[in-house]
Amino acid sequence: MMAAWSDNIRKVEPYVPGEQPKDTNVIKLNTNENPYGPSPRVAEVIQNPDLLRLYPDPTASQLVDVIAEYHGVDSSQVFVGVGSDDVLAMSFLTFFNSDKPILFPDITYSFYDVWAELFRIPYERPALDENFRLVKEDYYRENGGVVFPNPNAPTGIYENLANVEDIISHNGDSIVIVDEAYIDFGGKSALELIDKYDNLVVVRTFSKSRSMAGLRIGYAISNPILIKALNDVKYSYNSYTMNRPSIIMGTESVKDDAYFKAMVAKVVATRTRFVESIRPLGFTCLESSANFVFATHENIPAKEIFEAAKKAHIYVRYFDKPRIDNYLRISIGTDEEMDKFVEFLTGYVQSIQ
Amino acid sequence: MMAAWSDNIRKVEPYVPGEQPKDTNVIKLNTNENPYGPSPRVAEVIQNPDLLRLYPDPTASQLVDVIAEYHGVDSSQVFVGVGSDDVLAMSFLTFFNSDKPILFPDITYSFYDVWAELFRIPYERPALDENFRLVKEDYYRENGGVVFPNPNAPTGIYENLANVEDIISHNGDSIVIVDEAYIDFGGKSALELIDKYDNLVVVRTFSKSRSMAGLRIGYAISNPILIKALNDVKYSYNSYTMNRPSIIMGTESVKDDAYFKAMVAKVVATRTRFVESIRPLGFTCLESSANFVFATHENIPAKEIFEAAKKAHIYVRYFDKPRIDNYLRISIGTDEEMDKFVEFLTGYVQSIQ
Repeated sequence: MMAAWSDNIRKVEPYVPGEQPKDTNVIKLNTNENPYGPSPRVAEVIQNPDLLRLYPDPTASQLVDVIAEYHGVDSSQVFVGVGSDDVLAMSFLTFFNSDKPILFPDITYSFYDVWAELFRIPYERPALDENFRLVKEDYYRENGGVVFPNPNAPTGIYENLANVEDIISHNGDSIVIVDEAYIDFGGKSALELIDKYDNLVVVRTFSKSRSMAGLRIGYAISNPILIKALNDVKYSYNSYTMNRPSIIMGTESVKDDAYFKAMVAKVVATRTRFVESIRPLGFTCLESSANFVFATHENIPAKEIFEAAKKAHIYVRYFDKPRIDNYLRISIGTDEEMDKFVEFLTGYVQSIQ
Repeated sequence: MMAAWSDNIRKVEPYVPGEQPKDTNVIKLNTNENPYGPSPRVAEVIQNPDLLRLYPDPTASQLVDVIAEYHGVDSSQVFVGVGSDDVLAMSFLTFFNSDKPILFPDITYSFYDVWAELFRIPYERPALDENFRLVKEDYYRENGGVVFPNPNAPTGIYENLANVEDIISHNGDSIVIVDEAYIDFGGKSALELIDKYDNLVVVRTFSKSRSMAGLRIGYAISNPILIKALNDVKYSYNSYTMNRPSIIMGTESVKDDAYFKAMVAKVVATRTRFVESIRPLGFTCLESSANFVFATHENIPAKEIFEAAKKAHIYVRYFDKPRIDNYLRISIGTDEEMDKFVEFLTGYVQSIQ
């Protein structure tokens, strides 16, 4: 017999996090991390362990200020969280309290429906078109909010800013969240629309272009009213979430802009080179504006390639989901890592055909 | 006119975090931090910034394992979170889903009612007795869960383990959370009861005795069923909350036990010395088993002392709340800091009388 308290335990469908192999011989192209470390300057600022004994500044003002300055906005327009997952979850909790469904694409970041379920937010998922593009008219209907990534995940496709603006302007009664986790690798940001629309929230992360997945830093930029609403919810829950190493190292990362731009350029160059290398093998990649490509082969099922690569200690990502179950999401590593992967694919494709 | 979306923004009463002065001349005795830094070994493990580019292990298994080993439990009995605030909030969300009210004392950690309000959990607050002690019989009534700190905050009073066990054993149908944030500074832990009662969750933090408030690490120890329930809820929300510096440095802190014990002993010795120093000035302290004391003066109102100390750049904590509005909560700093505070109090008390 189960104890009586078991009735009062929240039942959830637990999310299964992506595989993080402990084997260091693995070529890890499965979680869209940056193959290059962050600015070497970030290590220098954390040498003194004595600073760890004090609580972090709950407003993380040092980091907020440097992000605001970087984007040319006021500090009252910046909200920081423990990764963009935290920022997005807080945004769902803060902004999506309508009885109407929120809208996001059928193929998109896999956490949106998890949060909607957790917070009991109704949602609908308009289908992307046959080219995996947003159909902007699908977002004209009545709704309780809109959220989509740009570039989209896991396709890597960038939606032009005119279409993004069209969706924002058609939803004056809802909050529209544009999740720009990958924007530094290609495409124009919706940040320039922040002052024009009072219903727009742009979300960013340090995990991809800033090489700091291990630190968990994300942020939202919007108008001061929406940022205050986010902070009010955050402080009501746990006011000390971002730790001192993140605040200090994150700040230093933003300050070293030359290093940041150089590393992003390297990843983009490797992406172009990689796409060209696998085309002759029978692969097609969707046009990527991210630090990964979404690739399909003309006659070998994606799942088989995924499994063969894993046996060869190369991890990529496969989604067993409708419409995308013949694609692989391949993070862009170093040139050397991608060369090894191309070498593997060349041998593998030849062995099959 | 407000935009239509403003109706769907969550309304909360934001918590106002404690003051974190940027002025480094301040003697900071207001947030129960440890005056000594963590083990110097923790800085050595974070020299390589390259590790920051990878996502943290979502299970934080390295840290979970070392905590489990330290307490002589299985790793399946340990849940880690971003500070004990995160662990407690997750515990509320996971375990307190009954329609019956949860119970916690009228004078206690100030976040319990904040989380109960946020998650819409009904609650009742039985009054501590006139000596600020728990009345165990108050926890015999039907409830949806029980939570209390031991030692209690902000009183510092430790409740003996027989009374704690009595409350646990009278609540077989509810989860009982014993919040042991301060237990390392005095008193016997409820951890020894974990295997005896399936409804017990013990919560700990690295912020006080381990000098790591700046890292945000907390944990719960319980049986594998309750720990799995916590992890399921956590993964459904945000699976990457603890960052790499916290995992690595936290692990190293647990390994350096000699340093840890020496620093705790120093704080306890200073506490005894401080209490004896202010008694002749007309102060009475509740018997403290924590890294702070709760002090009242025989004829000067606590609020006046609080304000005078602040003018002298010494920050302590004052709560403008029923029953405790004539007390000061004074964190234990270094001997030198406490000597300066005693010097200030001596002059101040003389000037008044």
